Amino acid sequence: MTEQPELVSATRIDDGLAIELVWKGGLRSRFHAIWLRDNALDEKTRSGSNGQRKITLANIPLDTSIDTVQILGEQVSVRFLPEDHTVCFPQIWLWSHQYDRHKPEITGRMPAEAQHWRSDFSLGDITAGYCDCRDNVTKLMQWLSHVRHFGIALLQGGPVQPAALLSVVEWFGFVRYTNYGELFDVRTTIDPDNLAYTNLGLQPHTDNPYRDPVPTLQLLYCLENSAYGGASLVVDGFQAAQKLRDEDPEGFACLTRYCARFEYHGTGGVQLYSRKPIIELTPDGELQTIRFNNRSAGPIIDVPYKQMALYYDAYRRFASIIDDPAMQLTFKLEPGECFIVDNTRMLHGRTGYEASNGSRWLQGCYADMDGLLSTLAVLKKNAAGIAI
Amino acid sequence: MTEQPELVSATRIDDGLAIELVWKGGLRSRFHAIWLRDNALDEKTRSGSNGQRKITLANIPLDTSIDTVQILGEQVSVRFLPEDHTVCFPQIWLWSHQYDRHKPEITGRMPAEAQHWRSDFSLGDITAGYCDCRDNVTKLMQWLSHVRHFGIALLQGGPVQPAALLSVVEWFGFVRYTNYGELFDVRTTIDPDNLAYTNLGLQPHTDNPYRDPVPTLQLLYCLENSAYGGASLVVDGFQAAQKLRDEDPEGFACLTRYCARFEYHGTGGVQLYSRKPIIELTPDGELQTIRFNNRSAGPIIDVPYKQMALYYDAYRRFASIIDDPAMQLTFKLEPGECFIVDNTRMLHGRTGYEASNGSRWLQGCYADMDGLLSTLAVLKKNAAGIAI
Repeated sequence: MTEQPELVSATRIDDGLAIELVWKGGLRSRFHAIWLRDNALDEKTRSGSNGQRKITLANIPLDTSIDTVQILGEQVSVRFLPEDHTVCFPQIWLWSHQYDRHKPEITGRMPAEAQHWRSDFSLGDITAGYCDCRDNVTKLMQWLSHVRHFGIALLQGGPVQPAALLSVVEWFGFVRYTNYGELFDVRTTIDPDNLAYTNLGLQPHTDNPYRDPVPTLQLLYCLENSAYGGASLVVDGFQAAQKLRDEDPEGFACLTRYCARFEYHGTGGVQLYSRKPIIELTPDGELQTIRFNNRSAGPIIDVPYKQMALYYDAYRRFASIIDDPAMQLTFKLEPGECFIVDNTRMLHGRTGYEASNGSRWLQGCYADMDGLLSTLAVLKKNAAGIAI
Repeated sequence: MTEQPELVSATRIDDGLAIELVWKGGLRSRFHAIWLRDNALDEKTRSGSNGQRKITLANIPLDTSIDTVQILGEQVSVRFLPEDHTVCFPQIWLWSHQYDRHKPEITGRMPAEAQHWRSDFSLGDITAGYCDCRDNVTKLMQWLSHVRHFGIALLQGGPVQPAALLSVVEWFGFVRYTNYGELFDVRTTIDPDNLAYTNLGLQPHTDNPYRDPVPTLQLLYCLENSAYGGASLVVDGFQAAQKLRDEDPEGFACLTRYCARFEYHGTGGVQLYSRKPIIELTPDGELQTIRFNNRSAGPIIDVPYKQMALYYDAYRRFASIIDDPAMQLTFKLEPGECFIVDNTRMLHGRTGYEASNGSRWLQGCYADMDGLLSTLAVLKKNAAGIAI
């Protein structure tokens, strides 16, 4: 949103069912009477202490209209009928809440805060020191913003101690507890529940697509990694989806329109199932969640027979984009290093490793984006000197 | 899925790109070669111990086709080229994974396991005893299945002890920790963070629509309720959405097509925002999540100006359906009673109460459906005598 220009005029239109504002430079923005009344900022409509709306739609008269509108300094004053209720809206608030736009919505677009990885994107851009983030809110704010913008951030120089990753989660939010526990160990085990607990390579994937709601953040923290191999791979699933869209729009549409199925049957009483698309869009076409996991993909039975061949072609093409080394960022975690990924956007995997020679031990846990984004918003407001 | 009929024939079709099965009674189901190969059940394709797929799509030849198919007792044997790999599929598995269907998909349909409340639906149908559920897996299984089928279940006769609701969550899953803590107290407080912590009535709503992912389960457990008023109200949001769809299909489409905004600014560093539709459907039109909360609804800025009046008409109509006492189930919790709701489907609220005369103290917490559904699936399999 660009800076607010000066407001030139405010006019009642459509018999009072709306107003039209004209900003310096010629931009016009209309607002409906019902919208303005519902979003009124006065004490009778909203709680002064927490901003929550105190009225419901049933409290707003059906025949609500605007009697008068006028510019009063930095405010726009609106008088509503039949209530005879006058409410002031700051110009800056009206500017930043305009909905009278004419830009086309592009299907498969990135969410507002997500950024493309530049061609020279590297680990250094998204890496910070453990102690820096722990001790300095500005460093922490920058580190968290990498997750928001790029879907991933790395941390170096952390303690080589079991459960150290939980201290990282405490900086910004809350662990999501699952059947895997508060945290889980990723290392080679005998008779493993999950192929992650072997020394096999793992194709880049999103975690737990069989879970609904899917965990939106994953952390993987390295405690040992002396084995030959065992490098980490990450792929930006949003950029992979856009590549598919650009190369094969019909195939992209197919992966967004139909649900796949995911399932996991663990020992000890776990039976998880989901029915979700591989590429999930918001209803207005923004990229929302990628689910891709060859190990836990169940039989797809929600695609009509006539579309199934096209669906599989698209699925295979999407997989080949993900498998393309040019799409992958590769690094080997050292003890005391960890990465955090947005599990709705990023895929992660690993190369196989030699279990007989050296060891590899990571700890993982899940968390959620709402806590991270809230912490980030608060740190940003504090940094800007705005009282919360 | 009806019981599997006898399989009459299995034929290679489309030059080996698919097979056609004919079942007794005449039903035909086709399966593609690529689909069968990807879902092969043999040890080379799937791990015997945990069922996870060991191959990726890149391991399946591009020119995969079927050489021969034959019925072998209860199995169907399929030989794939060019791999020269033969895989057996149980008939019952093929029957239950058919995708060659011709039924029309109805927009706004209930999820597979969700049931409509019958006209004589009452609290007794979904209520169980605390000790019964704690001590008897069959009772627990029934109680959890109410949540799955009806979106709500009640419990009576629990301990009147703070944090008792956490023991209920332990029966089936995991608490979702949030900024409100592991659990939160719902009672009248001075200078409340949230209007829930007053004695005001609350319109039926879903909790935390400003959170992404939204908590999919909510528990409310009563410790004191001697105040006059303070009854609980619940509304089936899926049935409310279907009522809107039937009365005003265009308005329903409007609420599903555009995103609303939700926000919450708590004290002590909480800034939560989401951009989600009020009625969220899967891409193939199944009801998925209802978000409705007058207190935390932010200004809606993702609806085009030309659609906004229609959107508000639909929003108002949806609100009036929710406010209709005929849609509401009303009850007053006694100390030691609690209810659990599917927060993606059910709205809950309360009548106002007289805080000066008696007291009202509930404790609440969030949890997630994946854990509950997993526990329910395992209990059902155990009850059927099937080894997990």
